Amino acid sequence: MSPTVPRIVMKFGGTSVADLDRIRAVAEKVRKQVEAGCEVAVVVSAMSGVTNRLVGYCRDLSATHDEREYDAVVSTGEQVTSGLLAIALQKLGINARSWLGWQIPLRTDNAHGKARIESIDGTALIESMRAGQVPVVAGFQGIGADGRITTLGRGGSDTSAVALAAALKADRCDIYTDVDGIYTTDPRIVTKARKLDRITYEEMLELASVGAKVLQTRSVELAMKERVRVQVLSSFTDGPAPSEGHLPGSLVVDEDEIVEQEQVAGIAYSRDEAKVSVRQLPDRPGIAAAVFGPLADANVNVDMIVQSTGDDGMTNMTFTVGKTDLARAISVLESTHATTQYAELQTDDSVAKISVVGVGMRSHAGVASTMFRTLAERNINVQVISTSEIKVSVLIAAEYTELAVRALHAAYGLDAA
Amino acid sequence: MSPTVPRIVMKFGGTSVADLDRIRAVAEKVRKQVEAGCEVAVVVSAMSGVTNRLVGYCRDLSATHDEREYDAVVSTGEQVTSGLLAIALQKLGINARSWLGWQIPLRTDNAHGKARIESIDGTALIESMRAGQVPVVAGFQGIGADGRITTLGRGGSDTSAVALAAALKADRCDIYTDVDGIYTTDPRIVTKARKLDRITYEEMLELASVGAKVLQTRSVELAMKERVRVQVLSSFTDGPAPSEGHLPGSLVVDEDEIVEQEQVAGIAYSRDEAKVSVRQLPDRPGIAAAVFGPLADANVNVDMIVQSTGDDGMTNMTFTVGKTDLARAISVLESTHATTQYAELQTDDSVAKISVVGVGMRSHAGVASTMFRTLAERNINVQVISTSEIKVSVLIAAEYTELAVRALHAAYGLDAA
Repeated sequence: MSPTVPRIVMKFGGTSVADLDRIRAVAEKVRKQVEAGCEVAVVVSAMSGVTNRLVGYCRDLSATHDEREYDAVVSTGEQVTSGLLAIALQKLGINARSWLGWQIPLRTDNAHGKARIESIDGTALIESMRAGQVPVVAGFQGIGADGRITTLGRGGSDTSAVALAAALKADRCDIYTDVDGIYTTDPRIVTKARKLDRITYEEMLELASVGAKVLQTRSVELAMKERVRVQVLSSFTDGPAPSEGHLPGSLVVDEDEIVEQEQVAGIAYSRDEAKVSVRQLPDRPGIAAAVFGPLADANVNVDMIVQSTGDDGMTNMTFTVGKTDLARAISVLESTHATTQYAELQTDDSVAKISVVGVGMRSHAGVASTMFRTLAERNINVQVISTSEIKVSVLIAAEYTELAVRALHAAYGLDAA
Repeated sequence: MSPTVPRIVMKFGGTSVADLDRIRAVAEKVRKQVEAGCEVAVVVSAMSGVTNRLVGYCRDLSATHDEREYDAVVSTGEQVTSGLLAIALQKLGINARSWLGWQIPLRTDNAHGKARIESIDGTALIESMRAGQVPVVAGFQGIGADGRITTLGRGGSDTSAVALAAALKADRCDIYTDVDGIYTTDPRIVTKARKLDRITYEEMLELASVGAKVLQTRSVELAMKERVRVQVLSSFTDGPAPSEGHLPGSLVVDEDEIVEQEQVAGIAYSRDEAKVSVRQLPDRPGIAAAVFGPLADANVNVDMIVQSTGDDGMTNMTFTVGKTDLARAISVLESTHATTQYAELQTDDSVAKISVVGVGMRSHAGVASTMFRTLAERNINVQVISTSEIKVSVLIAAEYTELAVRALHAAYGLDAA
């Protein structure tokens, strides 16, 4: 009852609850927190593979299935896990009960299949926790204004957990996954990659959007907006002992919480983009709109953009699109030829985007020049550059990806000792 | 909108919706009724195998699992089927939507795992049907006064369907199963067994309780109480053409609806019982209570009972119990020895109960004597006899089961031409 009892939300993804043994292991992890004196609410995903099977059923029956029925079907995965985990917790002597979206209620809009959370009534859950019970909430689901079950879209359980942590005014939202935290880069490429103890929301968003698929972007945006402290942890290991001075996972927090800010938090890469060059366009006002307007209308996302103008009254546009959008982008651009009158259209899907991310670069000069110098020393040609306040990205030939990531990781002093 | 539009409830069991192809076939069956001008509501079970898997999960995690969590887990089977069938119907151009127990609402008591229906609000479903929509209701589930999902116990989808038919004032409740109706006896034993076009509720109850496992007993009791006309049909065949003057399945109805009542509707058998003889009990008042009281306290169901008293002041009790209860029954009886002081306890689990059932026997004499004569002609010894208003049952050695059933089927004129 004391206001100083820490309150945490623990979220377990599909691989963490893949079978009954793992569900039992999750129950043990929850018990540890309860025995440590925390008030705990748990959010669970479907057992891994279940959601895909249910989605497959719906698609098989009708390519254009009713999203409201899809939601009724697919939401059962999390319902099963929440009931099973409640049973596993009770077996350990812990008072627990399952909660479905409509029981809380967790209200969403009516955009079935990809609903947005509108409000969460935390009253019943808080009462339950104060009475010593652990609520086990089915993630990924809510109830629409139409009184029917909604789902939040793939990966929505992370968002459920963060939103719930905000509604419950939790001290922390722990996301248990199959990795033990956020790394300075992909450990499969750089063996000396280090786990970050702390990372800011902004950095996490940049890292997530360029390839580090640990947390769903929406959940990080929500955490940033609601100032929810998110910890990423492995559900399979217990991490280093606290005595070593390290956190068991990575904490995604506000910048204020990070005292010693490194210039660069991490190096990310993506091989999911393709380069498009539209050459020899007439350099007149409105030419950029003539190129990019139709692409936007066709729902093609354009990322890095460079324009270079020559002395001949002509200009070149180079940009990247998602590889899966490339064919559509070409067809849209060809259809604009009557107005854009370009001389040539070139594409290259053997490219990689390498990004250096860190809030520290706001106050540290030279981050970009270190990047360019490091790549030049390895004879890696930079094709396109784009920058944001906390990120520098370059486009290079895909074959240099590993070399570039390793060289940059070392150059920014990120290699583990 | 016309009050003469026939309204039917169609219920499909687990084998009828076992996979996506069968769900598509069910959708076709529903379409036929819709196109014939009926208002249709559908009730579905879980895809076969699903409920057992979910029940197994709960039991594996805890032998004494919380029934409320069990209900949350197990009810998902029907939820999935209702959504999938709605999608399959929409694919055929039929306006359909799924309904869960809590959405209707179908209210039950709080006896989780084996709840009883308290009320069904048919308003929303009737509105939906009048608007040309087919409600697809998840069977087997409701919502308790505690706001949590309840299930009705195994086979509860039949009960859901009958209760829904009553609430919707439906003209008929069609139960689709893996057999095409109620037979005069088990066709695996008597190849000349005939499908019954009509059978009374009372007969159906007697047949169900002695081994013909087509309809759940509770659903027949409810149908009788609410006067719901129930039709049993195969979901795998279409039955004989109406022009042949036969119904596609079997209709379970009130006695008034059956004009030409046969003496005997069917012959049932059960090899699930065991015989217990308690010999040489002191023949004093209260001795029966001393034997059967402790059995009832131990939840052992006792069926056929015979008492025979000799000249020596001693009496014998012979009765049957379910085979699965036999070991428990013996241990209970042995524990009563101090008070009952019997000389001997004999048991025999190689027995069969053969029953002749028919409301016609109320007005026709000689049904029992035909039974005894027929068995005597085959040298089959009758060990125990019990009778009700519409049933005569005998206990015989199990090895004579097929012979007895065939002989009786012929003797009562039930063999197909």
